[in-house]
Amino acid sequence: MSIHSTAIVSDKAIIGENVNIGPYTIIYDNVEIADNTIIEAFCEIGIVNHLSKGEKLYIGENSHIRSHSIFYEGSTFSASLITGHRVTVREKTIAGKNLQIGTLSDIQGHCEIGDYVRFHSNVHIGQKSKIGNFVWIFPYVVLTNDPHPPSETLLGVTVHDFAVIATMSVILPGATIAKGVLVGAHSSLKGDTEEDMVYAGSPAKKICATSKIKLHHDSTVSAYPWRKHFHRGYPEFVTTEWSKT
Amino acid sequence: MSIHSTAIVSDKAIIGENVNIGPYTIIYDNVEIADNTIIEAFCEIGIVNHLSKGEKLYIGENSHIRSHSIFYEGSTFSASLITGHRVTVREKTIAGKNLQIGTLSDIQGHCEIGDYVRFHSNVHIGQKSKIGNFVWIFPYVVLTNDPHPPSETLLGVTVHDFAVIATMSVILPGATIAKGVLVGAHSSLKGDTEEDMVYAGSPAKKICATSKIKLHHDSTVSAYPWRKHFHRGYPEFVTTEWSKT
Amino acid sequence: MSIHSTAIVSDKAIIGENVNIGPYTIIYDNVEIADNTIIEAFCEIGIVNHLSKGEKLYIGENSHIRSHSIFYEGSTFSASLITGHRVTVREKTIAGKNLQIGTLSDIQGHCEIGDYVRFHSNVHIGQKSKIGNFVWIFPYVVLTNDPHPPSETLLGVTVHDFAVIATMSVILPGATIAKGVLVGAHSSLKGDTEEDMVYAGSPAKKICATSKIKLHHDSTVSAYPWRKHFHRGYPEFVTTEWSKT
Repeated sequence: MSIHSTAIVSDKAIIGENVNIGPYTIIYDNVEIADNTIIEAFCEIGIVNHLSKGEKLYIGENSHIRSHSIFYEGSTFSASLITGHRVTVREKTIAGKNLQIGTLSDIQGHCEIGDYVRFHSNVHIGQKSKIGNFVWIFPYVVLTNDPHPPSETLLGVTVHDFAVIATMSVILPGATIAKGVLVGAHSSLKGDTEEDMVYAGSPAKKICATSKIKLHHDSTVSAYPWRKHFHRGYPEFVTTEWSKT
Repeated sequence: MSIHSTAIVSDKAIIGENVNIGPYTIIYDNVEIADNTIIEAFCEIGIVNHLSKGEKLYIGENSHIRSHSIFYEGSTFSASLITGHRVTVREKTIAGKNLQIGTLSDIQGHCEIGDYVRFHSNVHIGQKSKIGNFVWIFPYVVLTNDPHPPSETLLGVTVHDFAVIATMSVILPGATIAKGVLVGAHSSLKGDTEEDMVYAGSPAKKICATSKIKLHHDSTVSAYPWRKHFHRGYPEFVTTEWSKT
Repeated sequence: MSIHSTAIVSDKAIIGENVNIGPYTIIYDNVEIADNTIIEAFCEIGIVNHLSKGEKLYIGENSHIRSHSIFYEGSTFSASLITGHRVTVREKTIAGKNLQIGTLSDIQGHCEIGDYVRFHSNVHIGQKSKIGNFVWIFPYVVLTNDPHPPSETLLGVTVHDFAVIATMSVILPGATIAKGVLVGAHSSLKGDTEEDMVYAGSPAKKICATSKIKLHHDSTVSAYPWRKHFHRGYPEFVTTEWSKT
């Protein structure tokens, strides 16, 4: 275990084996950090909030939280969480294995996230979002939740396995993004969608099957489902599983 | 008063009763912080800038500035300012009571903001903006000001009382958003608007009266004016006043 | 040279004459900072990354990096770099003189940037971007690079001299923005463009020559090329050169 001399770490926090905590980082009381995890500089881990109802923050093993990131108490991350810088994650975020959260992303909490999900930079995940496994969300995408803001009604967005939401799209309250859907860049999507279809525009319309999009460097090969050709960052048992589907 | 031992607080700053200053926060010279205010960790409060012309930063009583926030000297906030994390506020921002500024928002200064205004996360308020009372601005909204960038011309946006601007809309230079208007998500709005109407699209067009939008869970009740059903976070004397209008 | 007592500065870093390093800032090993440069508080300068292949971070003379900014090793900036707050700059960013990077901007690295380029707040520059001289990019603009995300194909955006990209536009993978082009706010631009033309909309279309846009306060004068009337922040030898073109 290596805790920098300028870090402020609560005696009450549970810190695993071989955890590395960087300069000026603050670890609050109600936190458990599992083995082999790195927390870089200027982070705040486990901010107290009454909405957490006393639940702790749990960071799974082999995680890496980059500098200037902020996590509230009351959330749970399975193993191998990886973040960029300046990530903000509020209470009651329940996430699976190997979530990646890009720089500047803002997870508003009260949401569920599956395994091997990738948020690129500056993604905004509204409360009540439900996100499946192997989902990709690109920069400046916002998942909203209020059908007539401001109100007390929260209609979260649902995103199913293998779906992709491209840059700067807004997903409107209560929308459902089906398995394998691609939402094109700069779209505004409402309502329900069909599996493995492309939606684009503002308001977004169904354009075609994702399989009609071909690889840039080989127009005989479909770019989707992306799992057929893109394997970087996934463990072999996962990509082997994919090869059977 | 509680100042963390790692905070760097100028002797020249005026700090009220019962003010709490967090770890690693820096308070510069030309600052007055009123009673019962919390400044969390990693903040910079009162950054010197020649555009401030020596005017101080004033933070009203009962305010709460969350961690990693940056305020320049030369701005004034009435009581009960509440911010998220990583807020940036430049000089010559003059704001009324109980302004809420969400995480990552960027107030460019040289602007006026009324009472009880709410900026959600990642809002960008350009210089020369004039914002009334009880206004709501949602994530990734930008209020612009330059009609032919880059230039020396600054045509700020005006937003009147009770107006709502939904997620990821751009308000173009010189636009005026009338009282009670709703700008739909992912819109681009130019020019003038009429009270209590919905504008949406890119370019945004007038769609209908806001009263035509019904509550999600009760289609017999109009969702707007929102003040008829949404009271969270406002003091009772305010909502009592609303009930008469 | 003035290094704040709380700054953590590697003995291996090369620090020039009259360099000022603010409170709580961390300077890593593989860094050279030239003379007369200011690094404000809470920065991280020269973060190690295997993609840098051991190349150092070089910050040219007379630069000013504002607080909470993060630079990786492996990038090079010529003289007079100016940043806002919370800027993130990854490895292999090669930039010319007097680059300005606004608050919250995110430069993903592996990109080339010319002289006197201005990024306003919250700009996202994807990998493989090539940006000429005197370019302006406004808030919430994203330069993308993946034609069918997620994939291993990176098709960067090319932006030529004097081009302007207005607020909240997405530039799609492989697009080329010709010299003097104006991309209107809230656009989504694909493919090639012609010099000195306006493109706007989603998808963006050619609208007219930029010279058809007149100054707001004098409709007899074209607002473009902007270099004919806007000179703030450029040295005289540059604007003298412009007057001949």
